[in-house]
Formats: sequence, C-alpha cells, structure tokens
Amino acid sequence: MAEVRVNLAANSYTIHIGTDIAGDVSRLLASLGFIDKLLVVTDDNVGKIYGDDVIKNLRKDGFLAELFCVRPGEDSKAINVAMDLYTKAITMGLDRKSPIVALGGGVVGDLAGFVAATYLRGVPFIQMPTSLLAQVDSSVGGKVAVNHQLGKNLIGAFYQPQFVLIDIKFLSTLPERELSTGLAELVKYGVIADRDLFIYLAENCHKILAKEPAVMTEIIRRSCEIKADIVEQDEKEASLRAILNFGHTIAHAIEADTGFKYNHGEAVAIGMHGAALLSLYLGMCQQGAVDKLMTVLANFKLPLTAPECRMEDLFPYFGRDKKTVGGKTKWVLLNDIGKVTITSDVPETIIKRVLAEITVNI
Amino acid sequence: MAEVRVNLAANSYTIHIGTDIAGDVSRLLASLGFIDKLLVVTDDNVGKIYGDDVIKNLRKDGFLAELFCVRPGEDSKAINVAMDLYTKAITMGLDRKSPIVALGGGVVGDLAGFVAATYLRGVPFIQMPTSLLAQVDSSVGGKVAVNHQLGKNLIGAFYQPQFVLIDIKFLSTLPERELSTGLAELVKYGVIADRDLFIYLAENCHKILAKEPAVMTEIIRRSCEIKADIVEQDEKEASLRAILNFGHTIAHAIEADTGFKYNHGEAVAIGMHGAALLSLYLGMCQQGAVDKLMTVLANFKLPLTAPECRMEDLFPYFGRDKKTVGGKTKWVLLNDIGKVTITSDVPETIIKRVLAEITVNI
Repeated sequence: MAEVRVNLAANSYTIHIGTDIAGDVSRLLASLGFIDKLLVVTDDNVGKIYGDDVIKNLRKDGFLAELFCVRPGEDSKAINVAMDLYTKAITMGLDRKSPIVALGGGVVGDLAGFVAATYLRGVPFIQMPTSLLAQVDSSVGGKVAVNHQLGKNLIGAFYQPQFVLIDIKFLSTLPERELSTGLAELVKYGVIADRDLFIYLAENCHKILAKEPAVMTEIIRRSCEIKADIVEQDEKEASLRAILNFGHTIAHAIEADTGFKYNHGEAVAIGMHGAALLSLYLGMCQQGAVDKLMTVLANFKLPLTAPECRMEDLFPYFGRDKKTVGGKTKWVLLNDIGKVTITSDVPETIIKRVLAEITVNI
Repeated sequence: MAEVRVNLAANSYTIHIGTDIAGDVSRLLASLGFIDKLLVVTDDNVGKIYGDDVIKNLRKDGFLAELFCVRPGEDSKAINVAMDLYTKAITMGLDRKSPIVALGGGVVGDLAGFVAATYLRGVPFIQMPTSLLAQVDSSVGGKVAVNHQLGKNLIGAFYQPQFVLIDIKFLSTLPERELSTGLAELVKYGVIADRDLFIYLAENCHKILAKEPAVMTEIIRRSCEIKADIVEQDEKEASLRAILNFGHTIAHAIEADTGFKYNHGEAVAIGMHGAALLSLYLGMCQQGAVDKLMTVLANFKLPLTAPECRMEDLFPYFGRDKKTVGGKTKWVLLNDIGKVTITSDVPETIIKRVLAEITVNI
C-alpha cells in the first residue's frame, strides 16, 4: 500500500493507495478514534456494486454504519439533496465525532463533503473515491461544494478529509469513458508539474488503459503527490493552486455551453489542447510540446476538439461582459511539458482563433 | 474607541467598540484591502432605522454596496433564505474578495455568516451587531449557522469575521426586553470567568438599564475580552468553550418546550438559576453565590422561573432517551461567582427537584 501525506498543519491527513484495501477503512477509522455511528454516502450505481460490502464490513467491525444512496449525476450536488442528508444524519443521531464517508465519484465526494463541513459546524469526513477522476483530483485538496441553479460549485467550503482511501479495485467496474475522463486530469498533472509523469503516461498507455494495478497505483500516487504539494503551498487557492485549472478555463465554457454533453475529462482535454494552442500562438511554447500533449490525449481516447460548440457561443465566456462570477479570466498557459504560467493578458483575436480551431470537426 | 483583539493565527481579527462609530466601517474595510462590491444583510426592523444610513455612507466612500433585508425573527435562519442570499450575491457579481456585512442581531449574524462561510467556499465576513445580545455573544467567536426543521443551528460552520464593529448607538433603539436578554449573557460572563465584572454589573445596574455609553462600552469590552480569551483557547469547542454554555442546557429545553415563548436571554437567566440550584444541591457552591446571581438577574428584569413549563415536560430533554443530537448531557455548574466546572454526573432526582423549582410561579 502506498501512502501520500498531505501536510496542512491541524488539517493534515494521509492518502492510502492500494489494491483491494477497501476493507481497511475500519482499521483506519479506529486508529483515529472513531468507533461508533457513521454514515456512508454513495450513488445508486456505486452503491449497487460496492455498498453492501462496505456496510457489511463496517458493521462486522462494530460500526453502526448506514448507507445513503443519491441518484447518480450532477443533479445530486444540490441543496435539497444536502437537506435530505442532514435529515438522515439527525435522525440517526450522528454527533460531532461521527464520520461521514463518501463512497463514489466526484459528485458524491463534493456533496458528502459539503454536508460533513456544515453538519453541526463540521464532522469528520472520509473519502473513498471510486472513479479515477475522483481518485486523482476531487478527493484530494478539500474542495467541497454543491451547485446553485446559476452556477456550479458556488456553495461550498475548504474542508479536508480525515483520510482518503483509494482502492484500485474500484476501477475494475469503471466504464471506459469514465477512465478516460480521469486520465485527462492525470495528463494535466504531468503537463503542469512533472515531465517524468507525462513521459511515464505516454510510455505506458496500453497498460493504463488495461488498468494494470501496479501502473495505476504508481500514476495515482504520483498525481496525489503533485496535488498535495500544490495544496500544501496554497490551501485556499490564493495563487499557486490556480495552476490546477490548466485546461479548465475553456473546459468550463464547453461544459456550460453544451449542458455537460462532454464529461469533465473530455472538456478538460479539449481545454488543454486550446490552452496549448494559445501558448503556441503567444510564442510561449514550441510546436513540439503541443504535439506531445495532443498525442497522449488521443492515445487515451480523449477528444481534442468540441464540434458540438461554435466559437461565437464560447467566446462570451471569456469576454469583458461575461456574467459569471470572478472578474477577469485567468489563463494557465504552457511553457513546456512540466511547466506552466498564469496570465490574464491574452488578446481577444488569439482567443477567437483558438476557439475556432478547437470547435472544428476532426 | 476600545479595541479587543481575537488571536486565532490566520483567522485573527479586531473587535472595535465605541459610540457612533458605524461610519468607520468604510475605513476599516479599506484598511483590509476591500474597496469594491459588498452586500449588507439586515432585517426589516433594523434596516428601517439604520439600513439607509449605512448604505449611503458606504456608497459615499466608493463602495458598490447593496442592502438585503430578511424578515425579523428566527424563521429567517433557514436554508431557503440562505439560497435567496446566494442568488443575490451571484446576480450582483460578488467574488471571493467581496465582503458580506451582517447588520443586525443574532439571527442576521448567523445567517449572513453562514452564507459568507459557504458562498464561493468563503468570502470576507463583517459583523455590525445591533443588539446587546449579538454584541456580547453571537458576533464574537465565529459560530455561524442556519436551522434545520429538526433543530436549531444544526447546519453551520466555524467562520471568523474580518472584524466586528460594535456601535453603542445602535442600543438606543433596542427595546427593553431585548436589552435584558443581552444582560443575561453579560451576567453569565461574570459568573463563569470574572468576579469583578459580576460586581461591576451588580453595582451599575441603573446606569446599565439607562444604557449610559461609558458603562456600556466597558461591560461590552470586558465581555468580548472574556469570550475572545475562551475562543482563543478552544476555537472549535473541543472542551473549554463549553463553559460558555452555563445556563444554556436548561435554556435550550425551555426554548424548545415553549416554542421560544421566552427569548434567549430570559431562558438563559432561568437556566442559570437552575444550574446554580443544581450546584447548591450537589454541594458545589454556597447559598450566597446563588443569592447573588438571583439578585442581579432580578435587577436586570430577567425572570428566574418559567411558569409556562412543567417539570415533566422539561425532564425528558436531559434523560437517556432524549432525541436531540450529542449524547449525554454536559452540565456547567457553579463553584462560586467567577468559577464553574463541567460535569455529566448529576443524579436524575436532583435534576427533577431543580426543574420543579424553576417552573413554579413566583
């Protein structure tokens, strides 16, 4: 079992990574002093496969564990679903020492984490991410949130888990498209911070698509290390943490414009392609870096363009008149594989040129 | 102007106390680097008297300030009202640097604070408490929350303000019953931590009921110091902070049993009387301490008993079968004026005897 420590003073915690380690959750809970009631939150898809096993194991080990299933999908990241969870927590008598465990992908983690952050002003939170995307991205770093009808993740908190337990076994039942979406974030880590990881991903493409446990453990461990390192330096996204948004600026526009027709990793892949082109046209990187990025993304069966979108529809998301929260658009741009820069200074003509290129049908 | 510093590492802040200092809010905001949009949350009662002035001053000083009025009363501490506030914040384009200002009593502070803690994962929060209760209690310490239909304050966070601005002038329009409810918490600070404050309150009863500014500034400053000192030692209520609940155990039962027919300070006054009697019967304090407490409470026009309640109805709140969250009842008991002890070990017969005494009609 690999371990990655996230050092955040009083909020420090460990990420445990291995194959078939889901049963270790009882031992890890007990080692932190949790011994009584807890609530496991999952969705119907994950719950159907793993819910009973997880609950049965916890009960065998003496926990008063109950399962709460939400409907799969982004719609469950909502205040009304959070309210149902508070009601469940209250009626089962969870107190300030009772953990809430997220067993699922990013939606379950964000929702359960928001409830853990706010129920009784904060109860212990445990992440058991089951999708590759959640394992390498959303389960690490403490961002939790639900959506508002006017935008994603607008209601949330920075709230760190007590520990993260990443069982590679969960990936065995992950659909191929869901695997790819996680791989997009893995490629991102290589591009923003670790040229060696990028090369490893490029060279082990087939083993990764075949979900070979040793290779998956290695790339997940390395991604968690990178994210932990960034989060340690900037827990609340004052500055550095923003480099994690490489590819996400355009991705968010694509997601919003298409009503999430592209899943998150697909949108990020297209967004990284766009960000690389922006960097190229601004003279910040070489064509070779763009080519390498495009090759790896394509090998991982990720899209490079969004033919469902039109440049004219995407552009307003980056203009001066945009309705979204946050002021001027910050771009994370590519210097070379392993190195990025943040800038707000990108001419509109270049943005338009890139948006036109990444919306063609190829 | 008096100042009390609350030292909580990165979450440290200053409480400013004085007469006619509401206009200083612009200068204090600017000194922390806030210069643009902000939202002032208030209720209809306070908004009618002070809302226009506060907004006009902020705008004069260059802030893009807007006012959001909620209905007065506990019902506004609800998720649906918080949702209206998020919508307002989004539509006016508040970003992570845009403060949310609470101008009002405890309800407004708790609601606005919860929204500030969770909008965009946390935006700057400013407290301008207008009731004595909020000035000496709820505005200091960072507890923010909304209610769930199954219980008060079940959804919330520990979220410290950027600063607290206490203008004694606001008390001039405070109804007498609201003044008394704040005085109950002031008496509590004397009892749990500061014999000198208790004596000062006892000796200056008439000046306090007449709201003499110098005396009010002094007792509010001293209360804030005591609360700050306790919160500094135990921000998240792991242990010591629980002494702030002196009188509150019985108070919460009275509030729940009567549907808040007694306001918070009245319920706390009755609860302190009950806690003092418990301590007396357990041999923990002298009759003289109980008498002193009862005298001061009576001088401040606070009730000592709750004839609206019956012992039989209150007792289940403290029994083993209680439905409320949190496990075994913790009692804060009196050793002497200025010194209290926490214990869970109180015989049921003594609890019943005290509940019978504090529900008689005197």
